[in-house]
Amino acid sequence: MITIGVIGYGYWGPNLVRNFMETDGTTVSMVADLSEANLGKVRSRYPTIVTTRDHQDILRSAHVDAVAIATPVSTHFELALAALRAGKHVFVEKPMTQTSAQAHKLAGAVARHKRILMVDHTFIYTGAVRKMHELVSTRDLGEIYYYDSVRVNLGLFQHDVNVIWDLAVHDLTIMDFVLGRYPKIISATGTSHIEGQPEDVAYLTMLFDDALIAHVHVNWLAPVKVRYTLIGGSKKMIVYNDLEPSEKVKVYDKGVTLEKRPEAVYQMKVGYRVGDMWAPQLDPREALRVEAAEFARCIRDGVQPVNDVRAGVRIVRMLEAASKSLRQQGKPIQLKES
Amino acid sequence: MITIGVIGYGYWGPNLVRNFMETDGTTVSMVADLSEANLGKVRSRYPTIVTTRDHQDILRSAHVDAVAIATPVSTHFELALAALRAGKHVFVEKPMTQTSAQAHKLAGAVARHKRILMVDHTFIYTGAVRKMHELVSTRDLGEIYYYDSVRVNLGLFQHDVNVIWDLAVHDLTIMDFVLGRYPKIISATGTSHIEGQPEDVAYLTMLFDDALIAHVHVNWLAPVKVRYTLIGGSKKMIVYNDLEPSEKVKVYDKGVTLEKRPEAVYQMKVGYRVGDMWAPQLDPREALRVEAAEFARCIRDGVQPVNDVRAGVRIVRMLEAASKSLRQQGKPIQLKES
Amino acid sequence: MITIGVIGYGYWGPNLVRNFMETDGTTVSMVADLSEANLGKVRSRYPTIVTTRDHQDILRSAHVDAVAIATPVSTHFELALAALRAGKHVFVEKPMTQTSAQAHKLAGAVARHKRILMVDHTFIYTGAVRKMHELVSTRDLGEIYYYDSVRVNLGLFQHDVNVIWDLAVHDLTIMDFVLGRYPKIISATGTSHIEGQPEDVAYLTMLFDDALIAHVHVNWLAPVKVRYTLIGGSKKMIVYNDLEPSEKVKVYDKGVTLEKRPEAVYQMKVGYRVGDMWAPQLDPREALRVEAAEFARCIRDGVQPVNDVRAGVRIVRMLEAASKSLRQQGKPIQLKES
Amino acid sequence: MITIGVIGYGYWGPNLVRNFMETDGTTVSMVADLSEANLGKVRSRYPTIVTTRDHQDILRSAHVDAVAIATPVSTHFELALAALRAGKHVFVEKPMTQTSAQAHKLAGAVARHKRILMVDHTFIYTGAVRKMHELVSTRDLGEIYYYDSVRVNLGLFQHDVNVIWDLAVHDLTIMDFVLGRYPKIISATGTSHIEGQPEDVAYLTMLFDDALIAHVHVNWLAPVKVRYTLIGGSKKMIVYNDLEPSEKVKVYDKGVTLEKRPEAVYQMKVGYRVGDMWAPQLDPREALRVEAAEFARCIRDGVQPVNDVRAGVRIVRMLEAASKSLRQQGKPIQLKES
Repeated sequence: MITIGVIGYGYWGPNLVRNFMETDGTTVSMVADLSEANLGKVRSRYPTIVTTRDHQDILRSAHVDAVAIATPVSTHFELALAALRAGKHVFVEKPMTQTSAQAHKLAGAVARHKRILMVDHTFIYTGAVRKMHELVSTRDLGEIYYYDSVRVNLGLFQHDVNVIWDLAVHDLTIMDFVLGRYPKIISATGTSHIEGQPEDVAYLTMLFDDALIAHVHVNWLAPVKVRYTLIGGSKKMIVYNDLEPSEKVKVYDKGVTLEKRPEAVYQMKVGYRVGDMWAPQLDPREALRVEAAEFARCIRDGVQPVNDVRAGVRIVRMLEAASKSLRQQGKPIQLKES
Repeated sequence: MITIGVIGYGYWGPNLVRNFMETDGTTVSMVADLSEANLGKVRSRYPTIVTTRDHQDILRSAHVDAVAIATPVSTHFELALAALRAGKHVFVEKPMTQTSAQAHKLAGAVARHKRILMVDHTFIYTGAVRKMHELVSTRDLGEIYYYDSVRVNLGLFQHDVNVIWDLAVHDLTIMDFVLGRYPKIISATGTSHIEGQPEDVAYLTMLFDDALIAHVHVNWLAPVKVRYTLIGGSKKMIVYNDLEPSEKVKVYDKGVTLEKRPEAVYQMKVGYRVGDMWAPQLDPREALRVEAAEFARCIRDGVQPVNDVRAGVRIVRMLEAASKSLRQQGKPIQLKES
Repeated sequence: MITIGVIGYGYWGPNLVRNFMETDGTTVSMVADLSEANLGKVRSRYPTIVTTRDHQDILRSAHVDAVAIATPVSTHFELALAALRAGKHVFVEKPMTQTSAQAHKLAGAVARHKRILMVDHTFIYTGAVRKMHELVSTRDLGEIYYYDSVRVNLGLFQHDVNVIWDLAVHDLTIMDFVLGRYPKIISATGTSHIEGQPEDVAYLTMLFDDALIAHVHVNWLAPVKVRYTLIGGSKKMIVYNDLEPSEKVKVYDKGVTLEKRPEAVYQMKVGYRVGDMWAPQLDPREALRVEAAEFARCIRDGVQPVNDVRAGVRIVRMLEAASKSLRQQGKPIQLKES
Repeated sequence: MITIGVIGYGYWGPNLVRNFMETDGTTVSMVADLSEANLGKVRSRYPTIVTTRDHQDILRSAHVDAVAIATPVSTHFELALAALRAGKHVFVEKPMTQTSAQAHKLAGAVARHKRILMVDHTFIYTGAVRKMHELVSTRDLGEIYYYDSVRVNLGLFQHDVNVIWDLAVHDLTIMDFVLGRYPKIISATGTSHIEGQPEDVAYLTMLFDDALIAHVHVNWLAPVKVRYTLIGGSKKMIVYNDLEPSEKVKVYDKGVTLEKRPEAVYQMKVGYRVGDMWAPQLDPREALRVEAAEFARCIRDGVQPVNDVRAGVRIVRMLEAASKSLRQQGKPIQLKES
């Protein structure tokens, strides 16, 4: 049984406590939060959990194996580092840190203290994303041509981070997991429409070392909610609509065929192939539940998860480079994987 | 009665002939095409129309008032210039020319020969686009925040132009008409996935002299057809879905409200406003029919249309700058309006 | 403060307890259920609530003002009658009783004991249904032509009642409230496809004393979920799609116009009118919360609610007649309102 | 080459002429219509076709092999009978006749004169309907539970027939072909809302000799266009949405599983099975083109088509019985297949 202490019981913390309480192999023994009201909610719902306003109580507790951090992003680095130094495994909300420098330091600490660190890239544990990962990694789609994602709606204006750090982080973690590749160049454009507030609309393009192109559109000010991803491959193509109640992932047997003879190109012989569409059954389990179980398994087996500190580094570097490009009106920025 | 000679009877020419034949105030007297088979189709359908393989016959004819040009884009400039020099009014397919240098020369010729020139930006004559133009120009939407358009599907690979010149040209003409504003900076990214072929996926961002941002996503290799535009304003927002059979334009009474007091910003008082949605009735007439009648009216009244040679110049400059940015992996390019 | 005792803590009971606990003006003091496990859930969540396996404890309690009944339908009549006789107000799940004879007796008891009885026709307290009621009762739709509703999906096979009593009851309560009229004739067809189980597909038609026609399609075995209602009026028409996340009610300014001159009919002068579509903003509050507050208000003010025992009688009579017709392969059955 | 004379060049006749002209193996030599204007359209478009105001000219012509009848339904019987007597094969619009008595006489004449008669049940030649026929007849869906179809919109008010004869005829022909079974009992309800006009809303239920149930909803006064069919089977289920541009037929691997042990029924062990969804590629050819080629093949090979005079009889009997039931407020009417 992995015993977990949770720091932060605001918006996302209650989901962590519920899932770590209900997952076989994990339990929550302590919750820390600065707000006494939040701690009251914990006690009335989970009488067995010890509550505290001082997160150090968790770090000092000998009974706590792992610390889950669900606090504002500006505190992630310090808290995660302290937890590692206290010998705890770490489950930390995304984005992992505010800067890539912090991310690298955290990667060093993970290696040094030989602890498990999982960044909460929840989406990669959904049935839909795992199915897309499978279809891409088995090369069912053929060579990947493009990855295009839209994530927009009217809602939940953030004040401390812009729309890239708030929304695009989801698309980048999904893309990173599904494609398993890292871009060479990132560019981003965006603007802010509310005085004194961060950018609320942004567009990111990522270029790779071949013809693959990826793009993310995020917007806090859209009149409708859209969660729509297109993945084009040489053999098949995917439409992933996260708002569909039942068929979130559709696989199209569509594509372009090109006669490879030089004279054919000259003669413009591009053909179209149209076949069946197929919506595979998806694992309906709550992503966070699957992720919690995987965290426990990683600790037990002493292996880092797929959403490990290196994944956290990759995502933070992309976010940082995108924000830099955005400030320069879309100037392309070179990325290095490590 | 305006008598028109049509040059080119391939893909689009038949639509021009049909509309100019059926519009009050216009008629077609001659059609030129290099293909005898195409000319045979003209004669069997319209026995009164004279056909020729030499477009000079049209330019020389004293009975022809105006020339409609529906030939490959590489020939637009020469044909339009020759028609103006022959004293004819000109109706020319989009994009107007292959380069902005040509576009400027054509603008000079229009002024010099005092003829009407209309670029066939068909979409701006649809009921949907005219309604959006009305809603923006009456300031019903308030200040415009963003213009976002997606135009993708699997289809009709072009070999002589890339996807920007083929598809984004529609979005740029619609945006130019609806917003009535011209960007300061354009950037574009895109790649080609079929060896030896032009770019099949592209993303364009346009920045203006305030917080307005515009973006266009075009793709020849998508498994599904999407024609979807979002326009965000400070008061209202529009969703324009051209594939909807009946309610193509939806106006949302949604937005963000900000208390303007400095302390409010500090206290992060961004509120959301949600109200009714409204789908106005749209003029159902065929756009090309409306446009043909407008062409006749402009000639009769001696006034240039809204889609005049200057509109043609604006669009070609954007296309040219976008292609230039695309070749430099998205480097932002400065635009000047004139 | 209205103090409520809840009988039944299975599928729906927890919703009643939560809402009566959180609504201003109501509280829950006791919960009865035959299952000790269910009562344990009550106690861990609401330590202040007294639990019992004997519902008589609630009826006998002097502190209980009203009884909420969320037990199987076969027990509704006895429990509601006993509660009225014990001087309690009653909130009872739908359908109110198993037979119309029971329903009439309950109406008599309500009158005799001068208590408030509310049948839990939850849907009529949704923002969508209240908006439709408003549009019909203000005659914005003109004369009502038809009411058509589809409620189908794969799910939750009931064993004690057929699909009419399980699903059509929702449509009948919505229709009864929105139209404010009662049919003269009801017919129903349906079949069972699972051996030994009740009918899983059914169609109901209701005819009124004019040209109004109503129809309900319910199905437990459909591959997709559909909740779709059409209401046609002489002036306007409504599409109510309960699965739409934001625009559940759409009002179409569409209709038929008929020139009333006799010769016009002869000359077949039926015209079509097409105008704007409009999706009004709807009250987003949880229906059961609104309903709970209304129950409290009715008790305080001594007035019966719109979903009173007479509404319960009307619905049960329709369900009973529909089941009778179904057994006779759709034979039309006469209905009397009282 | 089958030479065809077409009687009637109003709404549908032009489609017949175009398809019989363009199909290999058929040609049109004559067209008859009472309107000189309509005949003028024929001549300008097809200079080789002889036109006449007297359909007898077609029946008398020795060069005409087959007669296509696209006139008002009240004239179908007389014209088809006369054509058969003149030794011509017959292609006749649906519904085949106005009464089942006429339909039976026509069946006798077909047998007597040994000619081919095809009723224009166009929909059964679409790729979508042929695919559904294939899925049902190969028993991929298992035992068929229900067939449910909705065909509604605002449009094209008919004055000589009610909405059943105008719209439900499509659903009945599709159902007849896809299921390959004939109902035992039909009932229908419906009303008219425009004074002096036929019923504009109607509902039909058909019961079979097992638990199969079929239902059709047709409506001329709906604010939106719906063409939606559900077919439920014990193994799989179909959603056929004719308005979908690309995936009209979706096959769901969903269903109910029942443990057959008596004690299981008692213990209410109904389970749900949920699997993949699959949208097969459909033949995109125009249905009327496929049908025209099949008409030619049947004549050449001397075989009756699937949509032969017996199919015509079956459909007319259902329409007639439905109208009879409708006049009796939904009274169930017994049907006999022959």
